[in-house]
Amino acid sequence: MKRRQFIKVAGAGLAAGAVASPAIAQSSPEVKWRLTSSFPKSLDTIYGAAEVFSKLVSEATDGKFQIQVFAAGEIVPGLQAADAVQNGTVESCHTASYYYVGKDPTFAFGTAVPFGLNSRQENAWFYHGGGQDLLNEFYKKYNIYSLPGGNTGTQMGGWFRKEVKTVADLNGLKMRIGGLAGRVLQKLGSVPQQIAGGDIYPALEKGTIDAAEWVGPFDDEKLGFNKVAPFYYYPGWWEGGAALHFFINQAKWAELPKNYQAIVTAAAGYANVDMQAKYDARNPGALRRLAQGGAQLRPFPLEVMEACNKAANELYTEIAKDNADFKKILDAYMNFRGDQYLWWRVAEANFDNFMIRATSARG
Amino acid sequence: MKRRQFIKVAGAGLAAGAVASPAIAQSSPEVKWRLTSSFPKSLDTIYGAAEVFSKLVSEATDGKFQIQVFAAGEIVPGLQAADAVQNGTVESCHTASYYYVGKDPTFAFGTAVPFGLNSRQENAWFYHGGGQDLLNEFYKKYNIYSLPGGNTGTQMGGWFRKEVKTVADLNGLKMRIGGLAGRVLQKLGSVPQQIAGGDIYPALEKGTIDAAEWVGPFDDEKLGFNKVAPFYYYPGWWEGGAALHFFINQAKWAELPKNYQAIVTAAAGYANVDMQAKYDARNPGALRRLAQGGAQLRPFPLEVMEACNKAANELYTEIAKDNADFKKILDAYMNFRGDQYLWWRVAEANFDNFMIRATSARG
Repeated sequence: MKRRQFIKVAGAGLAAGAVASPAIAQSSPEVKWRLTSSFPKSLDTIYGAAEVFSKLVSEATDGKFQIQVFAAGEIVPGLQAADAVQNGTVESCHTASYYYVGKDPTFAFGTAVPFGLNSRQENAWFYHGGGQDLLNEFYKKYNIYSLPGGNTGTQMGGWFRKEVKTVADLNGLKMRIGGLAGRVLQKLGSVPQQIAGGDIYPALEKGTIDAAEWVGPFDDEKLGFNKVAPFYYYPGWWEGGAALHFFINQAKWAELPKNYQAIVTAAAGYANVDMQAKYDARNPGALRRLAQGGAQLRPFPLEVMEACNKAANELYTEIAKDNADFKKILDAYMNFRGDQYLWWRVAEANFDNFMIRATSARG
Repeated sequence: MKRRQFIKVAGAGLAAGAVASPAIAQSSPEVKWRLTSSFPKSLDTIYGAAEVFSKLVSEATDGKFQIQVFAAGEIVPGLQAADAVQNGTVESCHTASYYYVGKDPTFAFGTAVPFGLNSRQENAWFYHGGGQDLLNEFYKKYNIYSLPGGNTGTQMGGWFRKEVKTVADLNGLKMRIGGLAGRVLQKLGSVPQQIAGGDIYPALEKGTIDAAEWVGPFDDEKLGFNKVAPFYYYPGWWEGGAALHFFINQAKWAELPKNYQAIVTAAAGYANVDMQAKYDARNPGALRRLAQGGAQLRPFPLEVMEACNKAANELYTEIAKDNADFKKILDAYMNFRGDQYLWWRVAEANFDNFMIRATSARG
């Protein structure tokens, strides 16, 4: 009797003092991570994906697993997010893998390659086409474990001061565009430029550059490019779907209890579908406002698309010659791509195309 | 000193006895739910979404929150899953909301309506277009709280014994098709039939019916329809994206601790993107095998699509006249649909259509 009473009292004391038992502590430890986003808070849709992820993880663990989100520049610049994860400065980041093509062009497959997969097809490749495993095998070299964490959908081709009517119009074109897309355009005589978001507007205004790509209507609207470069081209053939990822330091990932790994996996999946949904819900209104504000929508001419596609294929062949990682993932990716569009041309595209026709006739 | 030692010893004793403190017990109780799927295990992609969901919830809670998944018929027939949730026979189900249009046609908006949204647009509507809130307000009448939980993408139009060349060919057509799509076809003289999956093959073989719709290549392949009805039509205009939902009994949802609600929300989001990815990854191979097995792919003629679209709009007007819930959601849905296709015709469709063209030229 005396002993039972002793335990009861002690138990109450423990609860008040919030001392967990070892068994419980093992599966629900207090964990604090930092996550650096590659994006500013002003890009609230893309930056917001990290917040959606962090909030779900916190709620799922009753606040025991806290992932504090930092905007680009608060800890490290946006383009150094992967480095910060690799060297353990932060446990995790939310970023676009293709920002790191300077380290290795293989990083591009995590986000988008010119004339690649669309958003849904990327998810199909990541989750059920072996893509995420291939990427993680590659990221391992950088101490990174990754999970898909959002998509923008097909981006716009960007803002041009003059119309692009023929392939020859690309020759000498100074365009703010990076990564593999810049290298593709270089083959056609363009001069790709690396310019930070905030500097694009004055560069377009002064004519220091002729064109600039950013994201899509919802994000582009905030920067007001329609006032200085009225021709708004589509599609952004270099990102048929631009996937974002959560990068996690491998050692930190391995340290997590299994239940926290499951929570992180589920929350990343939710953030993935949620971010695409947010862009899809917000882009139409922004597009309409941009058009009312003077943006003139233009599709890239077919001959331009074809020339760029040809140049992209040449670039892939060149890179693959000297880069075994790139070649391995390229082969798997292109094989998957072929299958995807074989299927897409049947039900998906026919439905979409009919609906576009039917709804535009209505107004 | 003595007091600290006392607590330490008692703490060890508690750990060995696995007695949790009240605060911890409150947030991680042992919970056991049953989930009835509306689908048989043989439809492993769609049925699998419930398993993916259940497994993540279990892993995220160290097995404390167990959701046992039952195939259609094990507890209740597939088409009574919502009733079982409503009356508390089970805590949850994984189902297609449009199975319940017999109770109220408003249920259709949870899955698909003819000439509605595609898969991504449905997610945009659910998560960021106010759709899920509207649906949950409606489902409340049935004691149901719901979360999006998967999508098939655009389905195929089904298997036909004879070609459909004109609208007149729909007249008298006996087709296995249900819900609002059946009512649309009825307006054009077709005779919709309700036939369980296993009975479709013999009905097509004997000519008791002229046509049957099922899902898409990956699921259709298992039933071998290509042997008895060679014309494989597309697109399934009645389900541009067929969304699945997890239905949860409202009282059971309210009883869950907040952290379990967060885990369920995240796991459902993961299952949502994962199921679409699985279908997208598996459909192309199945389509190729079906074509090799004699399936003859046919797009519905434009005049047939247009006549069906017109009939669908008439049907919506008729239903909305007497059904305030239907009208309220229809208006919101159609407004959202208009915006979506306005945007879709720009970057998304142009990219997809170019890629279809470019990859089919390659082989």
